[in-house]
Amino acid sequence: MDLDLIRSLAIPGTSKIVLLSADGLGGFPNPATGRSELETARIPHLDALARRGACGLLRHVAPGITPGSGPGHLGLFGYEPLRYPVGRGVLEALGIDFDLLAGDVAARGNFCTLDAEGRITDRRAGRISTERCAALVDRLRRIRIPGVELLVEPVKEHRFVLVLRGSGLSGHLSETDPQAVAQPPLPVHALSSEARGTAEIVNRFVAEARPLLADAAPANMVLLRGFDQRPALPRFPEVYGLRAAAIAAYPMYRGLARLVGMDVLKTGSTFADEVRTLRDHWDAYDFVFLHYKDTDKAGEDGDFPAKVAALERLDAALPGIEALEPDVFVVSGDHATPAVLRAHSWHPVPVALAGQYALPDAVERFAERACGAGSLGTLPAHDLMPLILAHALRLTKYGA
Amino acid sequence: MDLDLIRSLAIPGTSKIVLLSADGLGGFPNPATGRSELETARIPHLDALARRGACGLLRHVAPGITPGSGPGHLGLFGYEPLRYPVGRGVLEALGIDFDLLAGDVAARGNFCTLDAEGRITDRRAGRISTERCAALVDRLRRIRIPGVELLVEPVKEHRFVLVLRGSGLSGHLSETDPQAVAQPPLPVHALSSEARGTAEIVNRFVAEARPLLADAAPANMVLLRGFDQRPALPRFPEVYGLRAAAIAAYPMYRGLARLVGMDVLKTGSTFADEVRTLRDHWDAYDFVFLHYKDTDKAGEDGDFPAKVAALERLDAALPGIEALEPDVFVVSGDHATPAVLRAHSWHPVPVALAGQYALPDAVERFAERACGAGSLGTLPAHDLMPLILAHALRLTKYGA
Repeated sequence: MDLDLIRSLAIPGTSKIVLLSADGLGGFPNPATGRSELETARIPHLDALARRGACGLLRHVAPGITPGSGPGHLGLFGYEPLRYPVGRGVLEALGIDFDLLAGDVAARGNFCTLDAEGRITDRRAGRISTERCAALVDRLRRIRIPGVELLVEPVKEHRFVLVLRGSGLSGHLSETDPQAVAQPPLPVHALSSEARGTAEIVNRFVAEARPLLADAAPANMVLLRGFDQRPALPRFPEVYGLRAAAIAAYPMYRGLARLVGMDVLKTGSTFADEVRTLRDHWDAYDFVFLHYKDTDKAGEDGDFPAKVAALERLDAALPGIEALEPDVFVVSGDHATPAVLRAHSWHPVPVALAGQYALPDAVERFAERACGAGSLGTLPAHDLMPLILAHALRLTKYGA
Repeated sequence: MDLDLIRSLAIPGTSKIVLLSADGLGGFPNPATGRSELETARIPHLDALARRGACGLLRHVAPGITPGSGPGHLGLFGYEPLRYPVGRGVLEALGIDFDLLAGDVAARGNFCTLDAEGRITDRRAGRISTERCAALVDRLRRIRIPGVELLVEPVKEHRFVLVLRGSGLSGHLSETDPQAVAQPPLPVHALSSEARGTAEIVNRFVAEARPLLADAAPANMVLLRGFDQRPALPRFPEVYGLRAAAIAAYPMYRGLARLVGMDVLKTGSTFADEVRTLRDHWDAYDFVFLHYKDTDKAGEDGDFPAKVAALERLDAALPGIEALEPDVFVVSGDHATPAVLRAHSWHPVPVALAGQYALPDAVERFAERACGAGSLGTLPAHDLMPLILAHALRLTKYGA
């Protein structure tokens, strides 16, 4: 859906919208029982939401394509993920709450191990501790290159972020990570002519990093990939005509919301904190994006019972949100993370959209197979925002 | 779906995939019983596949559009048929196992009948016998035109294939067949400037054919249409990262598979031969396309009981395929051929996708209406290959 069309149809209103994204919501049947995490969990409030709402399944990128967290959330926000790509370096920076400015070039960095001949023996430097990573990042911060500001931030274990700040930079660069061992790191080259200067800067950074890390084996070198600039996305509040806020305990999701121009509200580390923050700011916003992380974490760990428990905790928190009486309340997720796969997957994700003008369908359970029979059908995730706005009576008709 | 996206996400694996295309699989209720061919047939193995797999309906070109065999199979192979057109002449050449080279221009030929004034009285020359066709093709082979090689091959009854081989040829030509009687054949003209030379060659061929056939009434002239060159399609094994083979008793389907770069395996004339070939080559391939023709034939003949019987024979062959334990086993078809229509139709075609990570839905029967309620929904056929790859764990995620 074209965002310019939505922008041209959006009208003011007083209705309030809550979009709750349970990360990695979708699952897959446990072979022992034949029932998925959602089909196993006792989730009476989510089931009631499904009964009173219109249900369906969301597909975030395209059939068969497993979404990363970036594309998954952009889809939920109404941005067609294939049309609005976000680079790996940018997502990594967002994931540590780094305030990326327009024009900055961000890259994902790994510390790695080189042998005496300069060939990579471990692309992750034996997964050094986060403390060690921070200490080595301090060494990299000594590097100075005229005309550009270099910002290096530790992430977790062997991972860090490199940000170049200055004028005329470009992220159109090849990667130094050959994605294989027994080879030396690659020099960066410009993938378009305007990136030549940036390529030189990066190569110089890498050259200066090597002696600084010479005695730091197994973390005696760096690999850089996913160079990109912050994409210029249409601003969510302007496209939809909504005062929009995001509440998320995890930095990545705050970063994604900031990328589209939502206000990011300060909150605590639990979902109860998030719901409290929602209540505290209820009057100031028309739209709140609320993020719940535990479902994804349990799925990634392959812990089926933990994912069931995470769903039941989410369900228990629902009355606290519903007490605020949002005009439109939507629950879905950014992708599936079935415990049996221990990873994101391509399976479409349940969605329930409740509100005065949402047609209740025959769906009685908030789960994959039940929602698959819902009245929304299986739809691209980026079609959800226009549906939400419509149900909030915030879109005028198209054509006379 | 963009094939470049799939190519960029495809990852190596050890999983094995079988895609079985039952030609003209879909049917339509017999007015006497209200049940379609699939709904009438006793097909316990296909029903079991539907129960354990994810089901849906495939639409190969667009809603309401009846696919030919070319577009139908290209769709199954993941190529959006409207984006990758294949000319009639090319399909005709593939249908007789003609090894079309890049740059060749192929045309579909008909012998026809002209009256004394040179006007067409029968566009199919009274459907002369295939033997007579071959004898007249021998006469056409006497034609020599400098700078181009002319290859003429009989097909069936009044039909033949003309292939021009040489450098600088173009298929961008109008047709000589006015698609009506009581008119003379049309001269060919170039539809773009680079086709002018080829137009001259074709007009000269037609001019030389006429005296050679003067005494051969009712086959005293030729009509040519569907000029085209072999399209440069992205290569299936490279796009999907699969060692891919095709097993088909009929030449047209071998030709289509060859067009996308699959290995075409030598096989016998029955489906049992095909299954034996599959078993014999099981270790050498990741993906095998298996073609079953009888369903389409019975549908084209308007023989409802024969189509039911063809489905039951297919069903009986299923255990022989399943014994090989493919990781992903998919059964569908290239289009519907309802016996009541005696022709291809636009009705979407059942699909069942089975594998460890395919969500079993509520579908209990492998048939049109049952699969319409399946979890895959009604989807473009070219979305099937990405789904197959996903279920075979051969696609990495999009975005971090």
